[in-house]
Amino acid sequence: MARIAVLGCGRIGRMHAANIEAHPRSSLAGVFDVHAPSTKEVAERLKTRNFASAEDIFASNEVDAILIATSTSTHVDYIQDGVAAGKAVLCEKPIDLSLERVNACAQKIAGTSVPVMIGFCRRFDPDHRAARQTVLDGEIGELHQVIITSRDPGLAPDAYIRSSGGIFRDMTIHDLDLARFMLGEEVVAVTAHGSRLVNPTLMAECGDYDTAVVTLVTESGKQAVITNSRQAAYGYDQRIELFGSKGMAISENHHETRVSKHLSHGTDIAAPLENFFIERYRAAFAAEIDNFVDTIEGKAKPEADFEDGRKALILADACFKSVAEARTVEISEFT
Amino acid sequence: MARIAVLGCGRIGRMHAANIEAHPRSSLAGVFDVHAPSTKEVAERLKTRNFASAEDIFASNEVDAILIATSTSTHVDYIQDGVAAGKAVLCEKPIDLSLERVNACAQKIAGTSVPVMIGFCRRFDPDHRAARQTVLDGEIGELHQVIITSRDPGLAPDAYIRSSGGIFRDMTIHDLDLARFMLGEEVVAVTAHGSRLVNPTLMAECGDYDTAVVTLVTESGKQAVITNSRQAAYGYDQRIELFGSKGMAISENHHETRVSKHLSHGTDIAAPLENFFIERYRAAFAAEIDNFVDTIEGKAKPEADFEDGRKALILADACFKSVAEARTVEISEFT
Amino acid sequence: MARIAVLGCGRIGRMHAANIEAHPRSSLAGVFDVHAPSTKEVAERLKTRNFASAEDIFASNEVDAILIATSTSTHVDYIQDGVAAGKAVLCEKPIDLSLERVNACAQKIAGTSVPVMIGFCRRFDPDHRAARQTVLDGEIGELHQVIITSRDPGLAPDAYIRSSGGIFRDMTIHDLDLARFMLGEEVVAVTAHGSRLVNPTLMAECGDYDTAVVTLVTESGKQAVITNSRQAAYGYDQRIELFGSKGMAISENHHETRVSKHLSHGTDIAAPLENFFIERYRAAFAAEIDNFVDTIEGKAKPEADFEDGRKALILADACFKSVAEARTVEISEFT
Amino acid sequence: MARIAVLGCGRIGRMHAANIEAHPRSSLAGVFDVHAPSTKEVAERLKTRNFASAEDIFASNEVDAILIATSTSTHVDYIQDGVAAGKAVLCEKPIDLSLERVNACAQKIAGTSVPVMIGFCRRFDPDHRAARQTVLDGEIGELHQVIITSRDPGLAPDAYIRSSGGIFRDMTIHDLDLARFMLGEEVVAVTAHGSRLVNPTLMAECGDYDTAVVTLVTESGKQAVITNSRQAAYGYDQRIELFGSKGMAISENHHETRVSKHLSHGTDIAAPLENFFIERYRAAFAAEIDNFVDTIEGKAKPEADFEDGRKALILADACFKSVAEARTVEISEFT
Repeated sequence: MARIAVLGCGRIGRMHAANIEAHPRSSLAGVFDVHAPSTKEVAERLKTRNFASAEDIFASNEVDAILIATSTSTHVDYIQDGVAAGKAVLCEKPIDLSLERVNACAQKIAGTSVPVMIGFCRRFDPDHRAARQTVLDGEIGELHQVIITSRDPGLAPDAYIRSSGGIFRDMTIHDLDLARFMLGEEVVAVTAHGSRLVNPTLMAECGDYDTAVVTLVTESGKQAVITNSRQAAYGYDQRIELFGSKGMAISENHHETRVSKHLSHGTDIAAPLENFFIERYRAAFAAEIDNFVDTIEGKAKPEADFEDGRKALILADACFKSVAEARTVEISEFT
Repeated sequence: MARIAVLGCGRIGRMHAANIEAHPRSSLAGVFDVHAPSTKEVAERLKTRNFASAEDIFASNEVDAILIATSTSTHVDYIQDGVAAGKAVLCEKPIDLSLERVNACAQKIAGTSVPVMIGFCRRFDPDHRAARQTVLDGEIGELHQVIITSRDPGLAPDAYIRSSGGIFRDMTIHDLDLARFMLGEEVVAVTAHGSRLVNPTLMAECGDYDTAVVTLVTESGKQAVITNSRQAAYGYDQRIELFGSKGMAISENHHETRVSKHLSHGTDIAAPLENFFIERYRAAFAAEIDNFVDTIEGKAKPEADFEDGRKALILADACFKSVAEARTVEISEFT
Repeated sequence: MARIAVLGCGRIGRMHAANIEAHPRSSLAGVFDVHAPSTKEVAERLKTRNFASAEDIFASNEVDAILIATSTSTHVDYIQDGVAAGKAVLCEKPIDLSLERVNACAQKIAGTSVPVMIGFCRRFDPDHRAARQTVLDGEIGELHQVIITSRDPGLAPDAYIRSSGGIFRDMTIHDLDLARFMLGEEVVAVTAHGSRLVNPTLMAECGDYDTAVVTLVTESGKQAVITNSRQAAYGYDQRIELFGSKGMAISENHHETRVSKHLSHGTDIAAPLENFFIERYRAAFAAEIDNFVDTIEGKAKPEADFEDGRKALILADACFKSVAEARTVEISEFT
Repeated sequence: MARIAVLGCGRIGRMHAANIEAHPRSSLAGVFDVHAPSTKEVAERLKTRNFASAEDIFASNEVDAILIATSTSTHVDYIQDGVAAGKAVLCEKPIDLSLERVNACAQKIAGTSVPVMIGFCRRFDPDHRAARQTVLDGEIGELHQVIITSRDPGLAPDAYIRSSGGIFRDMTIHDLDLARFMLGEEVVAVTAHGSRLVNPTLMAECGDYDTAVVTLVTESGKQAVITNSRQAAYGYDQRIELFGSKGMAISENHHETRVSKHLSHGTDIAAPLENFFIERYRAAFAAEIDNFVDTIEGKAKPEADFEDGRKALILADACFKSVAEARTVEISEFT
């Protein structure tokens, strides 16, 4: 059994804790949150150990691995501490909002044999993977274009937005990683557009955007387009279109049920989209833990590792630079 | 040019008149309706001859063929007159509400070389035909089951219902013919169920039903099921499912546009269904005239002839008998 | 914790055993199968007790309830034994192939307070339930017609067919129960049609059918139609259409993924249907165990009880009688 | 009757000629093509006048309006000649490949009361219009993003590509106009990406691209994304997604029939997409002629006028400039 401790008892940490418990080859070694009552409550509910500090976790010989679901600013330190303690790490995205700090961390953990995995859960979505498989199998030929539609169901609270690092580092970063995953080769150029249409006042205050389009191009000319909005009235919109020389595969949205309704005011009305990411990516989060357990056991490599996390952040930074300078930004500018 | 006169200037007669005008190889030779103002108005609008009587049409040497869209009770006489006058006939369904009268008419016109076509327009629907083609091509293997869903958007006026001959002769008759068309072999047994759920009072008064299920079986055991309702709140529901040993083909409903809407109260909302038969079967009605023109020119046989009309009526009568006697009725009982 | 023992270690028994293990409020108390190696293997794999006989299970005070997944002929005895031992029962469908034996069993267990649940798993399918909810909520108005399409992906082995009790008792029985569940009122008349189209020789030998249509009517005139085939080339076809005075709700088929492919030989190609019932009704089987656990704990009644099992069998028997006598069979004939 | 002469008897000219003939308020006044045999053949088939020269058309007092479907290089002269002759003009897109020539033409025809319409047929597509109507009606709220997918079914012949003016002026120009139509406000910035993935050799020779992504932004920040490919293996892909503050409307692809097939190798297989633009935009082309006739009769303004044609060309030029300079190009640079 892989004994995994969870740092951070917010919504995501709890979900991961439950998935760790449910996995046949892992056990929840304990939890910790800087907010002691949360730790206590989660520990009691999940009948697991209530660690007094993160240090206790790193020091414990009853912990094989850690899952970091704390606030972003703590990620880098915990990753370094985890690696130093020889505990496999699964860290939520983004690694950090500062590429400088991420690069420094990369140097510190360079050469370690301790696996560090970044929580790009969408790579594990069975439908996204099945779409990607049509590329790997040659079924749709050479991949030419990847179109990712990614819209949140509603604007996050102001405080969240203000500390999020901006749409590209907070929200688009998932899509940037997914684009890399789908493209199968490195992105060399990024162009981004940001607009303030959902909450212009807040966005202007934060220097942020709520509506965005990003175009990525690889060395061979493959193109990926990402369309983002912080607020889709009809729910959590998550689609991927892969266009290749022999065909197209689309990973369609998920609805709560497969019931269609036909009423006087509309026909073929589908059920609401699964809201929000915890529901929509339920299977993906479980598969992510499975990959982490395999990684801990030495059977597999992380589907997304530290370098993937770093590269996604570079792409996010390139987006901001592209918007600011109204030009296509070369990734080589970041090295 | 095939010169076709139209008897009956109601909604259907006018539609046929316009289609005759629009066809490149036919011309509208004139119109007649017992309601003189209707004849006058249609004749003026379509710039065609205003015949004073049906007799004048049969006597005219400027008329090659007639399209009968008058009230059902006049069909048999007009068919006989048309055949006697050597004019090709396209008569709206049903031939008559009385099988006895239809049989008598059949005897009278037996042996004639004048083509008599019955207006089973649905046979001409491009989608229904494309579905049937999957059977003819062997693509779905041996046909096992035909499932026809046929629901009207709203109950017809009381007066119409009272003189309609009952749901099986008025409404189901289209589906009975379509089932024969799809099955490709003769029906030997009929079982029907009728319920009074939309307007129980009216239906009880008329000895009629507004909700029905009919099962047809052929000699070789192929099955067809027809599901009818006089009132579908979501519109004109017209679907055909063909199930065979190698697969299934479905002729799906028609929507007014191909726009789907995604709103806060529902996703993937399709446009309303095309209402009513004149809209839904627009292409079919035009193709029907094309087949009629080909028939007049001697290039083709009617897709549905008098005997098809007679057989559909037998099936409708068998439905009523089946409901009354709560048993499966053999078609051989009608010969 | 509800301690549940499983009788029968075939494919279905094993699935139930795993679901019992996975449920947070139940534990697997042990397994038994007449085939000792199966019992041993399953007991070892699931780390549960290997009972030497059914009697040992009934006698054990470490067993609160039993799940019967043995061959049909043993069901009645095990139900009686379970009830006598005061152990809640969940028995796979059908209760028995003989209505006489079922009636006798009903008499024997009459008045007991021990819950007996019958495994009509489809009632628990989230999508089927969501469709039914549109009726309960009045969203589609008064229910008029229920259309159930239920086709297996492939003909079962000859030996299975020969001992199955015939299509209506073996396969249609699920749909008959589902029709009752959806209709919300008792069926009073049954008409069935059976054909031999998939394997005519085998079916004739068994006096059985592989292709069927069943029509059910309730006292108030609601209609249900069931369309069955033992073999659908495109997979396990499970659809329910509920047609009411204000609209229609359809519980659509389940596909393995939500990926659609667009290739040179076809567009919008959906993924294969989930095959077979264990995959398609995975969520339903889990919810069934949940209902069973609630029942054991006294918090709920069985969604489908012994009387539901008996009534479904009456409907199945009525189907055979209807086919044999080519008539509509009244359910009152069976009392 | 509006008497319209057609210049150019290629595939598009012939289609327009037939639509003019079919329209109830227009007549085909004659045809002309520099290739005399084509003119003769079309004139004979359509029973219309065979003009010996374009000049004869401009001079004829039996011609009220002209439809220009000749090669692009002749458009500007014919437009000027038509305007000078006082004949209403409908000219196929693009006006010209040179913005300089288009600007010069604009000056020459400035102030004329003779209507000049540009053939941006997609504006007339009933489905695209129904999608746009959801914006005009406020049904999807404020428009935020327009996503246009536009892929041709196969690479045009080399010769066509070489003289096409490049993908942005030849193919994307339709989408650029459509984006302007949908956005409802002027585009201020353009960013484009071009790749050579379908036929890299040919594209490199021509300095052209076969795969493109274009992003347009308006003053208020609305975004439009166009995804192009010269070759989609699954057919002519034409979709528009309108994303607004209250919802989304999608104008979906058109299939040849509404039949879905369910076979052993795939389920829900839709019919092929309508190929090519003449089939897909059949209704749009007819509606375009209707708008032209209304324009000739003074009842309406052109849905797309000369200035729309000029602005689309500016956007196309901006695309080439953006690719060349790897930056976002301001439209103000073109004035």
